[in-house]
Amino acid sequence: MRKVKIFDSSLRDGSHAVKQQLFPEQIEAYCDAVDGSGLHTVIVGHGNGLGASSIQMGLSAMDEVDMVRVAHNHLKKTRLGTFVTVGFGTIEDHIKPAMACGTEVFCIATHCTESDTMRRHVQYVSRHGKEVYGVLMNCHLTSINSLVEQAKNIASYGGDGVILMDSAGTFIPDQISRIVEELCNHVDIDIGFHAHNNLSMAVANSYAAISSGASIIDGTVLGFGAGAGNCQLEALIALMEKNGIRTGIDLYRLMDAGKNVISGMMHYDRGIDGTCIISGYAGVVSTFRTKVEYIAKMKNVDPRDVFLALGERKAIAGQDDLILEVANHLAEHGKRYGGNHGKFGKI
Amino acid sequence: MRKVKIFDSSLRDGSHAVKQQLFPEQIEAYCDAVDGSGLHTVIVGHGNGLGASSIQMGLSAMDEVDMVRVAHNHLKKTRLGTFVTVGFGTIEDHIKPAMACGTEVFCIATHCTESDTMRRHVQYVSRHGKEVYGVLMNCHLTSINSLVEQAKNIASYGGDGVILMDSAGTFIPDQISRIVEELCNHVDIDIGFHAHNNLSMAVANSYAAISSGASIIDGTVLGFGAGAGNCQLEALIALMEKNGIRTGIDLYRLMDAGKNVISGMMHYDRGIDGTCIISGYAGVVSTFRTKVEYIAKMKNVDPRDVFLALGERKAIAGQDDLILEVANHLAEHGKRYGGNHGKFGKI
Repeated sequence: MRKVKIFDSSLRDGSHAVKQQLFPEQIEAYCDAVDGSGLHTVIVGHGNGLGASSIQMGLSAMDEVDMVRVAHNHLKKTRLGTFVTVGFGTIEDHIKPAMACGTEVFCIATHCTESDTMRRHVQYVSRHGKEVYGVLMNCHLTSINSLVEQAKNIASYGGDGVILMDSAGTFIPDQISRIVEELCNHVDIDIGFHAHNNLSMAVANSYAAISSGASIIDGTVLGFGAGAGNCQLEALIALMEKNGIRTGIDLYRLMDAGKNVISGMMHYDRGIDGTCIISGYAGVVSTFRTKVEYIAKMKNVDPRDVFLALGERKAIAGQDDLILEVANHLAEHGKRYGGNHGKFGKI
Repeated sequence: MRKVKIFDSSLRDGSHAVKQQLFPEQIEAYCDAVDGSGLHTVIVGHGNGLGASSIQMGLSAMDEVDMVRVAHNHLKKTRLGTFVTVGFGTIEDHIKPAMACGTEVFCIATHCTESDTMRRHVQYVSRHGKEVYGVLMNCHLTSINSLVEQAKNIASYGGDGVILMDSAGTFIPDQISRIVEELCNHVDIDIGFHAHNNLSMAVANSYAAISSGASIIDGTVLGFGAGAGNCQLEALIALMEKNGIRTGIDLYRLMDAGKNVISGMMHYDRGIDGTCIISGYAGVVSTFRTKVEYIAKMKNVDPRDVFLALGERKAIAGQDDLILEVANHLAEHGKRYGGNHGKFGKI
């Protein structure tokens, strides 16, 4: 079994949980708190990656390359990583300057079927001798065979690994295990997994991924992230250690970072609410949460119904404009899903 | 596959989360909110069951049989259940009066190796034609073979089922599956599972139990319960429905009960903190949480270290006096566990 590399995306996916309002002092405090604790990489940036700051995706509180720069000054022992979604982040404006200020790990993301569009980004980073991982978002929306093809693409571009994103927190462990095993059988790069907790399965799915051969887990402290949050690293690490998988991570330090830094940044109670659960049930990307809640309130419809309707349309990340369309439709036609006469209830 | 019966222990295990301070208005409001939603049973009582109200285990805010009586008046369509730990609750003072005021389901609990001590309780309920389940607490502390013997005992007493309690939230799905399968192979009564979420595995372990043949899941709305809480029923039900296991439960109503009633009762942020995670790692019963935190603060030691030390001593429910002993020992000898030079960290 390869040693499992733990990627900490608290300062990237967590950015979604605070509407992209991360501040320099928070980045400094968090990096100080976890530097040298045994994590493979601390990933920093806008929730949708460098270059995504916009009215549509949420404006960052600070310049995005500055986020990386600030983090670099406070990571002496742990690698600095960042995230780039193809279509938002470019080589010239984001990858080059991030590399110039010390970024050693790059995660390049596309929708799960579009890895061919990450070719230039991955090749660029690889040729400059930095670690680079291809991230496949919303990977519940395609087949295992298709994911294998995407992983082969990423390997052929020089990627060091592929990271599967369960963006809507919709998988069960058996499904993750089958995907990871199949990928391990077909490519010789690291296989990673990034979970969401919509159905309370983030840690279990991450553990299943590891048990099936994954060598990267991307999660966050306190599960700080979009929607219901991510795989809570402290819980996963305790579970691994308990079951004989040594991580080399100073677990108490991660817990203290959560208690002393992250918990003060949270806008939401950390529990999983009905809207998050339904988004997982519907298979709709977690990053829609705040927008769905906002628009549902404005249109006086149930945010859970909005997620169910978005699920029927198979909405993916980036199709945020559908939220308003769906909410308008629900408002015009009345409640359609909930209650005993709808999707759930008497059988 | 047998239809899965969902037991809702929000007004029993949740009582631990509020130091046994449940009030009549809360019981009424919750029962009104979930009555007829498709749950098999709503279980009500002191966290440790009827008769446990005491200085050591926590004094109930109201008479315990009155808790059951109040609930009965607000459950018109859903069964009323209660919980009795052998050693606290008696036939004369608790089971008889609870039965007299309409309780239809009784859960009789002992430590996982002591089912012979529940014989009289189980037989009494069975002979009076009510449903009765034998509950095995802390079932990570004995072998599968021993659990099979306990289940056979319970069946021989007339029990309708056996409920396995992962009191410290310490299992992984494979372990639960093996236990449930083995029990299904040896006894012909319902096999049930009650999870705790210390390592974020409560829903995953409950789902694994169902997949392996369990026909009862005992959980709570919002996971409201001791320590890190229980299996969050709304998440589990969404997961079941998503994966083709129809529950007949009105999921929106359960979610609304959580939002409108339970969330206002909570003393803690619902997230899993370091102390809860370490209690799961150490395999120490979740009900110790509030006492460990209180005593650790008083003795100026780390509550996580207290749990690790209790785990070494294999403390079980009821041995609450060990908490002070262990904390005193830690205070005298300095910090022993955390940090890079302790149990976790560099390898």
